[in-house]
Amino acid sequence: MRTLTVELGERSYPIYIGQGLLQNIASFFEKHQITKKSPLFIITDTHVAPHYLNDVETNLHKAGYTVISAVVESGEQSKSLAVYEQMMTKAIEAGLDRSSTVIALGGGVVGDLAGFVAATYMRGVRFVQIPTTILAHDSSVGGKVAVNHPLAKNMIGVFHQPVMVLYDTSTLQTLPIREVRAGLAEMVKHGLIWDEAFARWCDQHAEDLLALDPETLAYGLEKGCSIKAQIVSRDERENDLRAILNLGHTLGHAIEATAGYGEFLHGEAISIGMAGAALLAVQLGADPSLYTETKRILERFGLPTVMPKHLDTDQVMNAMMHDKKFKEGNMVYIVPKAIGQVYIDTNMKVSAVRNMVERLKEGDIHV
Amino acid sequence: MRTLTVELGERSYPIYIGQGLLQNIASFFEKHQITKKSPLFIITDTHVAPHYLNDVETNLHKAGYTVISAVVESGEQSKSLAVYEQMMTKAIEAGLDRSSTVIALGGGVVGDLAGFVAATYMRGVRFVQIPTTILAHDSSVGGKVAVNHPLAKNMIGVFHQPVMVLYDTSTLQTLPIREVRAGLAEMVKHGLIWDEAFARWCDQHAEDLLALDPETLAYGLEKGCSIKAQIVSRDERENDLRAILNLGHTLGHAIEATAGYGEFLHGEAISIGMAGAALLAVQLGADPSLYTETKRILERFGLPTVMPKHLDTDQVMNAMMHDKKFKEGNMVYIVPKAIGQVYIDTNMKVSAVRNMVERLKEGDIHV
Ligand SMILES: NC(=O)c1ccc[n+]([C@@H]2O[C@H](COP(=O)([O-])OP(=O)(O)OC[C@H]3O[C@@H](n4cnc5c(N)ncnc54)[C@H](O)[C@@H]3O)[C@@H](O)[C@H]2O)c1
Ligand SMILES: NC(=O)c1ccc[n+]([C@@H]2O[C@H](COP(=O)([O-])OP(=O)(O)OC[C@H]3O[C@@H](n4cnc5c(N)ncnc54)[C@H](O)[C@@H]3O)[C@@H](O)[C@H]2O)c1
Ligand SMILES: [Zn+2]
Ligand SMILES: [Zn+2]
Repeated sequence: MRTLTVELGERSYPIYIGQGLLQNIASFFEKHQITKKSPLFIITDTHVAPHYLNDVETNLHKAGYTVISAVVESGEQSKSLAVYEQMMTKAIEAGLDRSSTVIALGGGVVGDLAGFVAATYMRGVRFVQIPTTILAHDSSVGGKVAVNHPLAKNMIGVFHQPVMVLYDTSTLQTLPIREVRAGLAEMVKHGLIWDEAFARWCDQHAEDLLALDPETLAYGLEKGCSIKAQIVSRDERENDLRAILNLGHTLGHAIEATAGYGEFLHGEAISIGMAGAALLAVQLGADPSLYTETKRILERFGLPTVMPKHLDTDQVMNAMMHDKKFKEGNMVYIVPKAIGQVYIDTNMKVSAVRNMVERLKEGDIHV
Repeated sequence: MRTLTVELGERSYPIYIGQGLLQNIASFFEKHQITKKSPLFIITDTHVAPHYLNDVETNLHKAGYTVISAVVESGEQSKSLAVYEQMMTKAIEAGLDRSSTVIALGGGVVGDLAGFVAATYMRGVRFVQIPTTILAHDSSVGGKVAVNHPLAKNMIGVFHQPVMVLYDTSTLQTLPIREVRAGLAEMVKHGLIWDEAFARWCDQHAEDLLALDPETLAYGLEKGCSIKAQIVSRDERENDLRAILNLGHTLGHAIEATAGYGEFLHGEAISIGMAGAALLAVQLGADPSLYTETKRILERFGLPTVMPKHLDTDQVMNAMMHDKKFKEGNMVYIVPKAIGQVYIDTNMKVSAVRNMVERLKEGDIHV
């Protein structure tokens, strides 16, 4: 088992990464003094529940915990105020109290939803993340929890740090390959924004990662989590540095919103977004290899890098205007300097971005 | 103008109390570096808006602020997830960004609602309280913000401290007398839990307070706020001490819920609750004068102290079981020791409470 700590003063918490951790789930709960007097509330989804819910419940029951579970529909649409309200109702009916703990068993959707429930139930109860996707190595670090508003993603939320993250890598074996690729997009992102060596390592180990080789995967997840943890430790509430984690996200979110949630996975959309950010950098004077290399690495993972032609550029631009990375009317854009380095441009011209979006539809720097 | 500070480390904030402060509202905003680049969002209600919204908007406009306003229905029913969602929609459509400030112009309902909007819009924006009720001297201190769930009051919320509280006492002149009385119930509570001298002062100045004599009122509000601030400073997140602020509230909330919101004002319900807590104390051995004195002081303000006979005791008891002051299955009850002193009983017998509720219907200690 690998253990790393997200350093946040009194809100610091460990991430445990390893195979088969869920077999011993109760010992982790006991270690973290999670009380047996108040019910636990597991939130999971329809794809995850059939594989893992029963085991988790049974192991916790055996140790003397009372467990209530809610299974939401798999998919982004469950990150809504309506589903959130259902969870609140269930929690109240089940008698959850201020000493209860909410558990997210699933990917980023369940993590964000359950986290927002934990953050706001009776003004905040404890929260444990049990990620079951690769993407969740990102979403389970940093305490951002949220639901979507019909007009914009992640608009309704707070910061609420978990007590611990229990990352049982065996659960990744049942993940559909498209989800594997999409999750690896965030892993590559962690290399691209912070650590050239890790970006190169991802490039070299793309095949083993896609094949879910346990050792390679555990190393990649640990490294990805630890990069995110370093950034979050320095800027918990996204005042400055933390914004670099949004590489590819301004455009990525706009793509998700314009295409309608469901056509692109989050990781796919930000892969296009990261290629776009590199193209923008080249437009602004960076060496063309920054774009071609970024694109090549992402494509090693079978990820899309070309802006879909059927998406209307004006609509995509409009969607970006609703995006929360626009601060005080200026468009903020995360732009790469080199592989492993980015900067935050707080004054990016909308016309330059528009131009990039158009060119990205060709997917070729020479057109 | 009186100024007091709620000491909460980096979250400390001032409360300004005085007549006519809203005439200079913009100078307070400038003093607190509230940006003119991002829109302000005022949330108020249908009773407050006709009196004060126009002036506030105009004064802010003149100083160069962009202002968006939402007027919700007056009343507790606006503290709902449905209205909260409408506020979020309005905020997004108006282009509120992370540097925007949300302003509560109104009583505790608008304060709690707007505070929860501020706390969760884009994971938290700045928040200014402009209380227009006496009760809000309580609700605007301490950062508790929330909306109600149909099954229980204040169930959905977080802690989110304001940047400042601007208490313009002239706004209290339009407050209906029943609301004045109800608000004074929380002022008396602050005396009863913490400061015998202040409780006696309230008793002696009941008439001037009810007549809204400016000097008397300003002193009472400052003192009430400062007692609450002292308690909150020592226990921001209600781990222990802060619970004493719930004197009268366990039963009060149950009365509100059982009668259906609307029959009793919050302050009226907790007045009955405070009389009940004193009766419980006497049942447990305190001197009978604790009950008769508490009752007499509350009645000086025209507040109810007798449990309404038409409320079913079992229903009231059930409503208490959903109340969040029950920690780990034990019933927590705030019990007075003497005028100005209370203790937290973490192991109160449900049967003793039930007995008290029954006796409180008679309103006489000798039956
Ligand atoms: N909070 C943050 O900091 C943060 C960061 C990045 C992304 N996110 C959010 O995360 C979400 C995306 O996360 P995601 O990609 O994990 O999505 P997800 O939770 O929807 O999971 C992807 C799909 O895989 C299924 N699944 C999950 N685990 C499985 C398993 N072990 N076996 C079989 N199927 C499984 C799910 O049911 C779903 O269909 C987005 O909502 C995004 O906004 C949040
Ligand atoms: N957050 C906290 O710590 C805290 C503490 C105590 C109470 N509360 C909450 O506060 C709420 C009760 O607050 P409230 O009593 O101020 O209720 P309120 O906001 O509903 O105001 C009472 C009534 O007076 C009207 N009104 C307000 N100001 C007016 C004015 N200046 N002139 C004319 N009419 C005016 C309102 O429209 C309403 O009809 C409850 O929801 C309670 O849960 C919160
Ligand atoms: Zn992401
Ligand atoms: Zn109250």
